[in-house]
Formats: sequence, C-alpha cells, structure tokens
Amino acid sequence: MLLDEEYMKAALEEARIAFSKDEVPVGAVLIYNGEIIARAHNQVETLQDACGHAELLCLREGSKILKNWRLLKTTLYTTLEPCSMCAGALILSRVETVVWGAPDLRQGAGGSWVDLLSKEHPIHNLKIRSGVLAEESAKMMKEFFQNKRK
Amino acid sequence: MLLDEEYMKAALEEARIAFSKDEVPVGAVLIYNGEIIARAHNQVETLQDACGHAELLCLREGSKILKNWRLLKTTLYTTLEPCSMCAGALILSRVETVVWGAPDLRQGAGGSWVDLLSKEHPIHNLKIRSGVLAEESAKMMKEFFQNKRK
Repeated sequence: MLLDEEYMKAALEEARIAFSKDEVPVGAVLIYNGEIIARAHNQVETLQDACGHAELLCLREGSKILKNWRLLKTTLYTTLEPCSMCAGALILSRVETVVWGAPDLRQGAGGSWVDLLSKEHPIHNLKIRSGVLAEESAKMMKEFFQNKRK
Repeated sequence: MLLDEEYMKAALEEARIAFSKDEVPVGAVLIYNGEIIARAHNQVETLQDACGHAELLCLREGSKILKNWRLLKTTLYTTLEPCSMCAGALILSRVETVVWGAPDLRQGAGGSWVDLLSKEHPIHNLKIRSGVLAEESAKMMKEFFQNKRK
C-alpha cells in the first residue's frame, strides 16, 4: 500500500535521527485517524534506559496525546521487527495493527527469535504487516554496526 | 531462601499501594549489593500508560539510580509472573536474576502464556526463581478482581 510507504518514510526519518545521535537506528510513528500523532526514535543511550526503544517511546507518547493507555484503532509503524518487550507493549496497548520494515534476526518477536505477534493472546491480538521499505532500514542498520566495528 | 521472602515482602508492600489506588496489585523491588535500590507498583491507570507495569517502572528507576541502562548484578523481585513486555525489558536490562511470586496464568511470560525467560536468548539469559510468597500475591489479586466484579 502506498500509505504504508508514506508512514514508513516518517519512521525512517526518526531512525535517521537516532543514527545521528549514535543510537541504534530504529524509528516509529503512531497513526490515528490517518494522522501521525506520535513519533519516536531509539534513545537507549541518551536516556540510559533499556526501555527507550522507539516503539515503546512512541506508544507512551501516543497515550499522552490521546490521554488513554488504550490505543484503540491505532497503527504503529516501526523500521525494525519489534523485540519481545515492544511486542508485549503493543499487545498491552491494544494497538490495532503493527507494520514493520526489516526483520531483526537476533531479537525479533515477530517470528525471528520468537513469535509473540501471531500467537493467540487471551486479551488482544494484533494485525501485522512486514517488509515495508525493509531495504532502507536494513541498510541503515548495517551501516551503523559496520561503523561500530571500525 | 529467607532473603527471598524478605525482599518479596517489600514487593508485596508495593502491590498493596497499587491495590489502594485501584490499580492491579503488582509490586516490584530491585536489589543491588544486597540493598533495595528501587521500588515500584503498577500505575497503568494513574499514569494512563500501558507500560506502567511495576517491573518496568522499577527497572527504569533502577537505571536512573545506577545511571546505567545495564542493570548488571541486580535481582528483580516481582509479586507476579512477568508479562512478555516486562520479560523482554528484564532481558534487555541484563538483570541477573528475576524472582516472582504468583503465576499469571493468562499473560505470564515465565511459562504460563509463553516462556521467554527460560528460552535461550542471543544476548542475555536470566536466572529465575518463582513461587516466593505466591499465596499472599495470589490472594491480593483474587480480592482485587472479585471487588471489580461486584
């Protein structure tokens, strides 16, 4: 879908901000009624907070905006397959749909390390799409970690 | 272990604070060098934040205290089996050991809904103990949800 790419581009812009701060380049945006209501990028090092992943920060920002911890009828776009913490947060937040770019082959909880997002959950089940602008995201991740190894 | 019960009592005190605020009664404490360095209780409704679970808040507070997102050589005590979000956060935070009280049969990620805490992870694996003062925790949870149904 064209809209998928448009929203993912916004998430990729966030990932680039993370990259420029020497943070693992992951970005996320939250959509409600067709509009981006929250944007975030990974800030683990900046905040010294292991919970400072783009997705978690974006969900928390979205709840502030909507004044509700239940993010019903929202879609979260993230440049990378969510980890188990973020997948759990997406379920708890009642996000309707999650769309991600590149797979996270080591820690992904959308099927790579474990599959939480397709597994039947007693309270909430998400719709998922993946692979949107995956190459851009994967390329940025690769460049980031190659620089780290220099 | 006697110390397990002592620390879990502190976590149960936090759970009681949550109960008194009409929050699902879960509490957590973080131990470093034998001392409680952070305490937290569930605050999802108060903060309107689905990520406001006791464990996550306690980890974030611990990172503030230690000025480090890596919570090496720490032990987290929680009155309830962690959910997948909190289990993921415990792994990311490099917590050494997690000890919980009662099982969470619906959403627990220590074997009840899914088992993230025993599953081999590419970056960090936790030591786990469970069932410490489980009855007190389960009783408080039962009372909380019975009141909700009245």
